[in-house]
Amino acid sequence: MRGFRTDLAMERVGQENGRLDGVDVSTHEMGGVKRTRIVIETARAARLLGRPRGEYITLECGQLAHCGPDTRQLLIRLIAQAVRVMLPREGEILLVGLGNRNVTADALGTRVVERALVTRHLKETLAGEMQGKLRGVCAVAPGVLGLTGIETAEMCRGLVERIRPAAVIAVDALAAFESQRICTTIQIADTGIEPGSGVGNHRLGLTEDTLGVKVIAVGVPMVVYASTIARDAMARLMEEYGVLDGPSSPAADRLLSQVAEGVLGNMVVTPREIDELVLSVADLLGEGLNLALHPSLDAEILHTFLHS
Amino acid sequence: MRGFRTDLAMERVGQENGRLDGVDVSTHEMGGVKRTRIVIETARAARLLGRPRGEYITLECGQLAHCGPDTRQLLIRLIAQAVRVMLPREGEILLVGLGNRNVTADALGTRVVERALVTRHLKETLAGEMQGKLRGVCAVAPGVLGLTGIETAEMCRGLVERIRPAAVIAVDALAAFESQRICTTIQIADTGIEPGSGVGNHRLGLTEDTLGVKVIAVGVPMVVYASTIARDAMARLMEEYGVLDGPSSPAADRLLSQVAEGVLGNMVVTPREIDELVLSVADLLGEGLNLALHPSLDAEILHTFLHS
Amino acid sequence: MRGFRTDLAMERVGQENGRLDGVDVSTHEMGGVKRTRIVIETARAARLLGRPRGEYITLECGQLAHCGPDTRQLLIRLIAQAVRVMLPREGEILLVGLGNRNVTADALGTRVVERALVTRHLKETLAGEMQGKLRGVCAVAPGVLGLTGIETAEMCRGLVERIRPAAVIAVDALAAFESQRICTTIQIADTGIEPGSGVGNHRLGLTEDTLGVKVIAVGVPMVVYASTIARDAMARLMEEYGVLDGPSSPAADRLLSQVAEGVLGNMVVTPREIDELVLSVADLLGEGLNLALHPSLDAEILHTFLHS
Amino acid sequence: MRGFRTDLAMERVGQENGRLDGVDVSTHEMGGVKRTRIVIETARAARLLGRPRGEYITLECGQLAHCGPDTRQLLIRLIAQAVRVMLPREGEILLVGLGNRNVTADALGTRVVERALVTRHLKETLAGEMQGKLRGVCAVAPGVLGLTGIETAEMCRGLVERIRPAAVIAVDALAAFESQRICTTIQIADTGIEPGSGVGNHRLGLTEDTLGVKVIAVGVPMVVYASTIARDAMARLMEEYGVLDGPSSPAADRLLSQVAEGVLGNMVVTPREIDELVLSVADLLGEGLNLALHPSLDAEILHTFLHS
Repeated sequence: MRGFRTDLAMERVGQENGRLDGVDVSTHEMGGVKRTRIVIETARAARLLGRPRGEYITLECGQLAHCGPDTRQLLIRLIAQAVRVMLPREGEILLVGLGNRNVTADALGTRVVERALVTRHLKETLAGEMQGKLRGVCAVAPGVLGLTGIETAEMCRGLVERIRPAAVIAVDALAAFESQRICTTIQIADTGIEPGSGVGNHRLGLTEDTLGVKVIAVGVPMVVYASTIARDAMARLMEEYGVLDGPSSPAADRLLSQVAEGVLGNMVVTPREIDELVLSVADLLGEGLNLALHPSLDAEILHTFLHS
Repeated sequence: MRGFRTDLAMERVGQENGRLDGVDVSTHEMGGVKRTRIVIETARAARLLGRPRGEYITLECGQLAHCGPDTRQLLIRLIAQAVRVMLPREGEILLVGLGNRNVTADALGTRVVERALVTRHLKETLAGEMQGKLRGVCAVAPGVLGLTGIETAEMCRGLVERIRPAAVIAVDALAAFESQRICTTIQIADTGIEPGSGVGNHRLGLTEDTLGVKVIAVGVPMVVYASTIARDAMARLMEEYGVLDGPSSPAADRLLSQVAEGVLGNMVVTPREIDELVLSVADLLGEGLNLALHPSLDAEILHTFLHS
Repeated sequence: MRGFRTDLAMERVGQENGRLDGVDVSTHEMGGVKRTRIVIETARAARLLGRPRGEYITLECGQLAHCGPDTRQLLIRLIAQAVRVMLPREGEILLVGLGNRNVTADALGTRVVERALVTRHLKETLAGEMQGKLRGVCAVAPGVLGLTGIETAEMCRGLVERIRPAAVIAVDALAAFESQRICTTIQIADTGIEPGSGVGNHRLGLTEDTLGVKVIAVGVPMVVYASTIARDAMARLMEEYGVLDGPSSPAADRLLSQVAEGVLGNMVVTPREIDELVLSVADLLGEGLNLALHPSLDAEILHTFLHS
Repeated sequence: MRGFRTDLAMERVGQENGRLDGVDVSTHEMGGVKRTRIVIETARAARLLGRPRGEYITLECGQLAHCGPDTRQLLIRLIAQAVRVMLPREGEILLVGLGNRNVTADALGTRVVERALVTRHLKETLAGEMQGKLRGVCAVAPGVLGLTGIETAEMCRGLVERIRPAAVIAVDALAAFESQRICTTIQIADTGIEPGSGVGNHRLGLTEDTLGVKVIAVGVPMVVYASTIARDAMARLMEEYGVLDGPSSPAADRLLSQVAEGVLGNMVVTPREIDELVLSVADLLGEGLNLALHPSLDAEILHTFLHS
């Protein structure tokens, strides 16, 4: 099943039948939300799964954009909790929205950053009590290499050196293997962003190695590659009817690779209403991150801050 | 090959192997642009092809958004010529941009209408010479049923009754069978818009029957349905390896239908850069239509009109 | 004080010192919101005030975009109540968003319509109980003459004839006399829209006379004309220092008129953050109108409808 | 006449009656475009004018958005020439688009950067001949302090340290004194951006002192402050009628200052069609800067680069 693009650790684990040594998976369900915690513990497991060692929290609940108000509040709290546990206790946080704001499905990171409660520049002017409650947060959407001429990682490194945050949170649109993952699954990981991840497929990595501070990655699948859809349809048929001795044979692999190249290479599959879904998921992630970063602010005060 | 969604007459004709009685196809190539004229002459051919009787002009030239300046000017003249031949000699024209402006791939019609040289309200205030050169043009983007609560066809009927134009030009984003058609092919037809066409898949027809005046349809494929991609991949495999006696057998048909339902039903395949492509194709169609509607205005005067 | 442009009945009344015969004004304050009801009862008063006879409800509460959650809920209920009292008990409603969606300050009507719970097309498919709760609502943003070539009033007349709603609600961006009115005041009137009102200054009237059904007008000031600012500054100075015997003298009137012409004629004054304010005010009006139109739907059900 | 906000050196010079020592002004007119070169030579003149020492090129030609094709081409060449003379002969250039992309009148810088031919990341992959023709250009729109929590100057300093460009070009929306300056005047200066300039009024300086490389500032007035309009109207009246001994008296100054404070402080005056004007001016500046940065590329090649 190699060759299918996915940024979800959960799908990688699912593609390996049976249990993997060095991977710990636990699942918990509450109020309509399924929470899965995957820990990739060994270098060998990381290599097999093609994902770095670390902790991955996945939240699932049908269509994120259409869940009811109660489920939505629960999701916000679960996002906040997962992120908060990974964050250092103190220090400023740099929020980075990855992706291309002009490409609907790739704009999730930018849209989340637009919803962030940015406070770093306010801290000095606030009264004492308020200062204690607010964490210093700054936020950028650095754009993509094709539009800026500057690698995202290079720009982030420059910012981190100057601002010296305690950690970075990087938000990105993901690619999934299964189309029903689109806008239904949230992944939060303490591993940073891998090179080559994401919808745009053009990122250098943003990790503790490259930036020098912890990088928490938050993402939601927004597309499946069209080549994945085509390969998956063919693989199922091969499996069921024994064509080419099934999809694992070298001959099948060659055939499947052909499909993934050519005209489908640049094509993505999205729901027709993706424009609206991106905004709705960005609202959800934005609220979750604001709660993670400023837990002692209640909703009313948050509102006042965001609108004055 | 039934069951694959396409709005292009050219793809329907191509899917039928060999020549069809009652269909006339001629092709002409110049300056990098391929122009195909299909005339569906008989009711029987119309039924077989699933397209109404009438004339279909198709223009193809690699990626429309990236062709060089000369090819672009040629395309604009060919669009103008094809539309002009179908238009009545005199009388006001109502331009209708179909689709949902909030759905990137479905917004082509709206974007073209935004680029139209609208003149109906100016005619009385213009000097004599100018009046003779300008055709009365009005333009609307009526929106989609889900957003307005009013059928597009119903709204157009109301407008046509009140304004009494000599003809309607309806611009729409299309669905194709082959993904390489996306943003590479322009279809201009004198048949109006069929019920169920388009990216949004929710339109009543806009035809001479329903509106009482001639309707010229102008469209460019913006998506392929994800189910089409999956079905096509499986059909090729069935064909080549004789699975289920090939894709035409009833068993294969059942299997292929299953793929088209379920989660893929609402999914569309687009190039990653669709946001930018839509704007670029809208520029091209807008210039072609402005030239078709006001042929005796030169570029300089057009420019002055559009910006004052 | 003639010559200052304002669409607010309240400002017209305020400009006339002392009580006017044939005008009834009453004020009520609650929870930080000031509600003023003005009834212009006689033709003479209408002529003096330059506003048609009818009822005007004005709601004021500091900056609408920044009020706290409680005040916001109160405003929504007050909008809903004022509109509901003016609406016929039964029958479908056509919501019309006036103005130019491409001009930030003039896009309020369009933005509100985008937030409307549109139900006219759903009524037949709903279960019995739900049918009783939902009112048939349809919604259009017809655009402006310069972009469509068709008078807004003409388009609305066509729609009303075809759809036969029980009433029309027209939402529009207004011009005020005082800059502190911008985004702080909501006006709801049963008089329809006057010719020449609004930011765009190019509307025919939408009234019961022209459309044949009751027209409720809902608006919020989004601009002050720059000429108003300049004239007001000069008038205050004339008043205070007796220049030209004060601003009411013919000589002063000539001078003030000169200021209003020329380069300032087309200029508007807005807060720097007008882009954000328009969206926020549109959210507020949208919620108020949805509650007015579907009072027996609770928030949860409304949410489900808007997102499925 | 102090106290009126303007970012145009030309207006500062105009406000001082008679010739100023240490300021050299020369004017040249061709093809409908007026080109003024102002050199502020001495520290004393700089202090008097409130503008730093350096060279200011101003181009004027009626409404920039509506000039004919020939005048437009001339303007593009004049922008390119003025910028090119100020640029170092060789080395990479960092283009910075200042301002808030969410505030229409303040988004000019962002819009220009979106139109830039960015090449820094392409240089290594290009064939030899092409390499010689293309200058390395990178481009960012860093956003504003209120949205990022990071000073623009701080972010630029970080980028300059990492990228080490030969010079920075900073594009910004300006405030003018006279409303007829809006979208009619282009200012190009080798002085960088002053603290407190611009529509947003919240910038630290971007100058050779703060960044360590030459900073060329390119701007077009997009607003006049409402307080300027009001003060100007009053000052004219004072002048003409001798109120308070004219606008230069201390009493008049107090009165004028009152007008500038309060509710007008945050208000800006723009043409009603500012949304469209910003895009049109951004097209013009974008083409001028692309020609300045890549003078040996002809239009055809530029087009190919921008769209592949």
